[in-house]
Amino acid sequence: MPTETRELRLARRPEGLPDADTWDITTATLPDPAEGEFLVRVTHLSLDPAMRGWLDDRPSYLPPVGLGEVMRAGAIGTVVASRNERFPEGTTVSGGFGVVEYAISDGRGVVVAEAEDVAPETWLGVLGGTGLTAYFGLFDVGALADGETVLVSGAAGAVGTVVVQLAKIRGCRVIGIAGGEEKCRFVVDELGADACIDYRGQDVDAELARALGDDGGVDVYFDNVGGEILDIALMHLARDSRIVLCGAISQYNETGAWQGPANYWQILVKRARMQGFLVFDFAKRFPEGRDALLGWLREGRITPRADIVDGTVEDFNDAFLRLFRGANIGKVVLRLGA
Amino acid sequence: MPTETRELRLARRPEGLPDADTWDITTATLPDPAEGEFLVRVTHLSLDPAMRGWLDDRPSYLPPVGLGEVMRAGAIGTVVASRNERFPEGTTVSGGFGVVEYAISDGRGVVVAEAEDVAPETWLGVLGGTGLTAYFGLFDVGALADGETVLVSGAAGAVGTVVVQLAKIRGCRVIGIAGGEEKCRFVVDELGADACIDYRGQDVDAELARALGDDGGVDVYFDNVGGEILDIALMHLARDSRIVLCGAISQYNETGAWQGPANYWQILVKRARMQGFLVFDFAKRFPEGRDALLGWLREGRITPRADIVDGTVEDFNDAFLRLFRGANIGKVVLRLGA
Repeated sequence: MPTETRELRLARRPEGLPDADTWDITTATLPDPAEGEFLVRVTHLSLDPAMRGWLDDRPSYLPPVGLGEVMRAGAIGTVVASRNERFPEGTTVSGGFGVVEYAISDGRGVVVAEAEDVAPETWLGVLGGTGLTAYFGLFDVGALADGETVLVSGAAGAVGTVVVQLAKIRGCRVIGIAGGEEKCRFVVDELGADACIDYRGQDVDAELARALGDDGGVDVYFDNVGGEILDIALMHLARDSRIVLCGAISQYNETGAWQGPANYWQILVKRARMQGFLVFDFAKRFPEGRDALLGWLREGRITPRADIVDGTVEDFNDAFLRLFRGANIGKVVLRLGA
Repeated sequence: MPTETRELRLARRPEGLPDADTWDITTATLPDPAEGEFLVRVTHLSLDPAMRGWLDDRPSYLPPVGLGEVMRAGAIGTVVASRNERFPEGTTVSGGFGVVEYAISDGRGVVVAEAEDVAPETWLGVLGGTGLTAYFGLFDVGALADGETVLVSGAAGAVGTVVVQLAKIRGCRVIGIAGGEEKCRFVVDELGADACIDYRGQDVDAELARALGDDGGVDVYFDNVGGEILDIALMHLARDSRIVLCGAISQYNETGAWQGPANYWQILVKRARMQGFLVFDFAKRFPEGRDALLGWLREGRITPRADIVDGTVEDFNDAFLRLFRGANIGKVVLRLGA
């Protein structure tokens, strides 16, 4: 039985990109699980762009991670000691355990994450907050109809890869935007997008116009990036279109004011709507979403993709920065002690 | 029978505010009405901020007014000769006759604008596109629920004055934003708003926080102005709130890029939506809207307010600029040849 755990704590709030000085690694003594509790060995940590926002002390949808507190993170782990019959020893579980090696849990917010044909990282990706974000964002917030035209930024990222595939399942024309030729090839060849624009090497506005064709417009823009690409997308909306505001990774490390969409007026011109959402708000429907996503996984209609970094909690920052460098294809996962 | 009409035509596209050089006054010979047509003497012209957008040669919801073309405008007039039995001589009508003294019409898009207790300018204001914009914008696009908190910018303007009164009819708490003490007094004392913030003399952010009180937020923000005030409003949204994108008068004469809302991310934080609309899209429901508005007018629950300029088509530009100087309270109407 382990008696200690190393934990990553927020030491100071970053200006711009976080670095080694942002964090402290501390060691805590593990208590024995009380009645109803269990001890989890964390095996996989979820790394998400949204975590950057939790480091800033400003009003948002969740309170910021406090100075000195353990960094909040979704994780997969194995129950190694239990006094909770719903989560016996040996169970693989998913929960918000934080960036730690071991965590004590009472089971709140924890789900069993077991299916013989699903890899642990996929419980953080397609079957985790990532896939559920794509599912509820595209279908509920985006109100996607079969056969519409969907534009997805961050198309090779964790959420984007699922959005592309979900939209194809619904018979849509899908145009991705991603950084670099390799990612674009992946989005088209592996995910099935009809086109993918390389924002690093191509003129996004011109390529988007070409991909849409004469009189074509975007019915649903699933925005993971904000900034300049949002502004370009706004100029290519179809009438009655929907902008699903999911992320703004281009802005999260901005130390000044964010870039507001100067072309927001197109929302009026096209009678469009821009809507924000948080996947947590759909928690009651997570079983529905997971069932649907698991079904498509098993039918081979969704291919999961992870960018796995092997390491320890000390490697959190390096793994996290992969997101902002655009180094990853698919879901970034830090695998502990593999 | 008149044989000629003076007309205001677009001579050159303005950079920023239009001026005398923007327009030409020409004289046209009037044909006799053909079978099914009638001749209208225009008595009242509608002046709307949106007309500024029609002068720019850029993609929008309507084609721009072409160089050399008569300026598009909604108007009220009297039928002075008719070969159309639906519109006999003497009928007061409302239609898009343009900035002219006389117009030939075949009746398309024209409605009879007669009610003994309604002034002609009110057919352009509360019962015209202005009031219908408020009605469909607030109730349909804004999905206003009884008792919610409504924020309205341009609250002393044509649309704003109706929005404030409609929201009060629905039992809402209403906070207006307007320019100057006189307008703010009008919005509170005459329209019944619970508060009005003077953006010229007060700190809008601080006053809005105070008006909302602890934990208060805006459920519906009806935006007529864009710019800085939109950005401030975004910081005071309630959860699941709606931003009705109706106008952006602060930006229409901008010669560079528009100011995009840097705080747009609050749309995600608050699970809000920002939606644009055009009143034309509700044309099939105009009778419903007019009936409701006329009923409230007659009950005294809506007080119409117009800013009437007496003059000729040559006075169009001066009257139009009242909107951008914020000189008007209520609907700006140019009354011809009174």
